[in-house]
Amino acid sequence: MTLTMYERIGHQSRRPSPFSWRIRYAFAHKGIEPEFRHVRFADVEIIRSLSGQHFVPIVTDGDRVIHDSWNIACYLEDSFPDRPSLFGGPGGRGLAHFVNQWAATTLGTAIRRLIAARFILCLDPGDRAYYRSSRERSSREAAIGCTLEEYCADRPRWLSEFAVVTAPLELTLAEQPYIAGAVAGYADYIVFSMLQYARLGCPEEFLAEGTALRRWRDGLVRMFDRLGDRYPAYPA
Amino acid sequence: MTLTMYERIGHQSRRPSPFSWRIRYAFAHKGIEPEFRHVRFADVEIIRSLSGQHFVPIVTDGDRVIHDSWNIACYLEDSFPDRPSLFGGPGGRGLAHFVNQWAATTLGTAIRRLIAARFILCLDPGDRAYYRSSRERSSREAAIGCTLEEYCADRPRWLSEFAVVTAPLELTLAEQPYIAGAVAGYADYIVFSMLQYARLGCPEEFLAEGTALRRWRDGLVRMFDRLGDRYPAYPA
Repeated sequence: MTLTMYERIGHQSRRPSPFSWRIRYAFAHKGIEPEFRHVRFADVEIIRSLSGQHFVPIVTDGDRVIHDSWNIACYLEDSFPDRPSLFGGPGGRGLAHFVNQWAATTLGTAIRRLIAARFILCLDPGDRAYYRSSRERSSREAAIGCTLEEYCADRPRWLSEFAVVTAPLELTLAEQPYIAGAVAGYADYIVFSMLQYARLGCPEEFLAEGTALRRWRDGLVRMFDRLGDRYPAYPA
Repeated sequence: MTLTMYERIGHQSRRPSPFSWRIRYAFAHKGIEPEFRHVRFADVEIIRSLSGQHFVPIVTDGDRVIHDSWNIACYLEDSFPDRPSLFGGPGGRGLAHFVNQWAATTLGTAIRRLIAARFILCLDPGDRAYYRSSRERSSREAAIGCTLEEYCADRPRWLSEFAVVTAPLELTLAEQPYIAGAVAGYADYIVFSMLQYARLGCPEEFLAEGTALRRWRDGLVRMFDRLGDRYPAYPA
């Protein structure tokens, strides 16, 4: 049975979504090649009719429809137990769930403060107004109470905040090769996907050379035949 | 061979150290009763002669001396592989290391802002001046650039910051019983030890009733025959 992954596609074939990146890496880790189908933010109704909600990625496996990246990762782990494990045991699955929530809240906020105003150029022009105004998104201007440009204005402050937030990653990766230990796992792909979102969604590099975090991130870009470089970078 | 744990003892038999609490729970998880030996901050030279550094807890096992709580947890896991696992597999060990660093940085800072000024009453009176002035401690007044009382003064701000920092814990524990998944593991004991430090080190409760985090913390207090209540609470 072929698995199909519905993912958001951006401006001129860009792949901006951190949720798609972590699932793309999870498929590669399991050695599975899904078929890809592309949607834009504006394709809400297609997604809703398929899954009863409107976020991507969605994975279908025959009649089964799985949405939410965490559920997709668990589905892949449980459906392909003979392939390399995404979690490295039950303790690894539980803690990867914590890392998933940490990335969605603490890390995600720190990154959006650095990229939200410029990330919009990665989106299809037809999606940009939706991105600013959608009521369901953390980037929505009504929720943050200002424009995206104002939200990101005090860059030195947000760079300093990013350093504070990522300190536990830096300390961990100075002592072991991957967040999940000796071998990369889904927790690595979660965190990597957020830094990939930053790397592709902003023209400036903000991981300093010589840090453990930069070395680890660059290693993940190169993993799986340079999967992290397969799509266009920030629009010139 | 009997294992011995050297731990800091506070005012009138209090046990204030989060690093001791996580190892106390790790021993209970493994079903091992160590002998306890008590030290105060001022016993620096005893500790240094034993381990070449001056932090507790230290565990000795015959001629072996293990210091740093993370190393002690790994030592217990590797020395007693037939007892219940602290990590739940290799992925769980890697991610518990990340949780250890997150607790030391992000969570630790948020808690110290709420308790540092009052925590000092848990210490033996002879240790209090050391606590304010030691150059190696994150509580030292020279490093924070103000008195402990000034550091904690804006309590509404630090309560709000604590809620932001613990959001990923609340989200995780709303969906699974323990941070490590279906079964408690060392990552739970790390985070619990920080909240136990807050619970015993401050007269006010700051985990709201009805939250997943409060329910989980209260469950850990009751675990292992109410191990979390074995020593005196905050000085009246």
